[in-house]
Amino acid sequence: MGQMAEEKAVVLVSGGLDSATTLAIAKSQGFECFALSFDYGQRHRVELNAAQTIADRLGASLHKTICLNMDSIGGSALTDAQIAVPTTGVGDAIPVTYVPARNTVFLAIALGWAEVLQAHHIFIGVNAVDYSGYPDCRPEFITAFEQLANLATKAGVEGQRMTIHTPLIDLSKAQIIQTGLALGVDYGVTISCYQPSPTGEACGVCDACRLRAEGFRQLGVVDPTQYQANAPI
Amino acid sequence: MGQMAEEKAVVLVSGGLDSATTLAIAKSQGFECFALSFDYGQRHRVELNAAQTIADRLGASLHKTICLNMDSIGGSALTDAQIAVPTTGVGDAIPVTYVPARNTVFLAIALGWAEVLQAHHIFIGVNAVDYSGYPDCRPEFITAFEQLANLATKAGVEGQRMTIHTPLIDLSKAQIIQTGLALGVDYGVTISCYQPSPTGEACGVCDACRLRAEGFRQLGVVDPTQYQANAPI
Repeated sequence: MGQMAEEKAVVLVSGGLDSATTLAIAKSQGFECFALSFDYGQRHRVELNAAQTIADRLGASLHKTICLNMDSIGGSALTDAQIAVPTTGVGDAIPVTYVPARNTVFLAIALGWAEVLQAHHIFIGVNAVDYSGYPDCRPEFITAFEQLANLATKAGVEGQRMTIHTPLIDLSKAQIIQTGLALGVDYGVTISCYQPSPTGEACGVCDACRLRAEGFRQLGVVDPTQYQANAPI
Repeated sequence: MGQMAEEKAVVLVSGGLDSATTLAIAKSQGFECFALSFDYGQRHRVELNAAQTIADRLGASLHKTICLNMDSIGGSALTDAQIAVPTTGVGDAIPVTYVPARNTVFLAIALGWAEVLQAHHIFIGVNAVDYSGYPDCRPEFITAFEQLANLATKAGVEGQRMTIHTPLIDLSKAQIIQTGLALGVDYGVTISCYQPSPTGEACGVCDACRLRAEGFRQLGVVDPTQYQANAPI
């Protein structure tokens, strides 16, 4: 009996904590991983350097970065320099850091690459517990995308199911970090901050910094994040 | 009583015959139209000049072109120079001109722009009659995308429905042309060919040329398409 080839998976890797953990989980489940990042005009573009490092260290077979100018659409603090990143804490409403339809766009492009690779699995590190309330991080969104994926593609027409994996969706930030540490993720190379310095030091006050810091605090583990000199942490 | 503002719609405009007709229909229905095109590494990029002309002439309020390097994914004769465009006629199988997940990606970006514009309507000129059998042109795909759109966005969470309009989906190519001519579309500025010359002359033998020429023939109207010197038409 010949050795079974690994199943291929496209893994969305932003450079942050969640997607690094997701890549480590996909690898641990035996998938051959194809890491996909996006240069979409985000103000925290330094995260793309982190994405490359993470893809390399966690054993992705290939890392691809797709460029698209979502900043020409604007509508988010992450893609429009005129809209400030909120720093006063995570609230109940959908915040201005929400990028309209971002996960729909990212998953659509991942779907296209998966089809070319003949991969039937896509991993995305969305989380609906310690998160900012973005609509496209919810389980019902992921279910709807999976249904779409199976109608949208040649593979789907030919009866091959595409599965969207969201291994973090029900985990707290502390549980995500615990999982990643057990799998050997070096969180020192990940960047969560929405407005880091050009060299990647975190601000400590945006929602992403707050959620991350709180996760490490709950777990009782030191966060290796490098902060800017004026950060209140 | 004040004048009612026009409802906004994002209209996908490729530069081809179908999307030009779709824009004319959206305008005739009273929508304020925001035309959206994509520079996605297609070999027939000259269609983008046509898209700009069409958007101007048919009264779009704005025309935006989003760049994304789908050619780095490849997998299609339209985005990979190594894969030849078929010229022997429209067959039954999904042809190599199919671009993996293209309409999913285009609709996702349209959705993002619609959300920023606070538009609740997207028009796309897909057609499931005289077409090449692409999975992402079928009614069930559009229905699934509309369901996704209403879960993916802030507007959807807040109860505002997004409608995906496909006015051409059940029309033959001849009916599409007849509709557009009645609305004043100048098909001389549209480019359907998958492999036009750098100045936009059509090859006459790719599926897109064949479907277009047959539509005009059935209608008994002269096609204003400019063909290359060696085209068999």
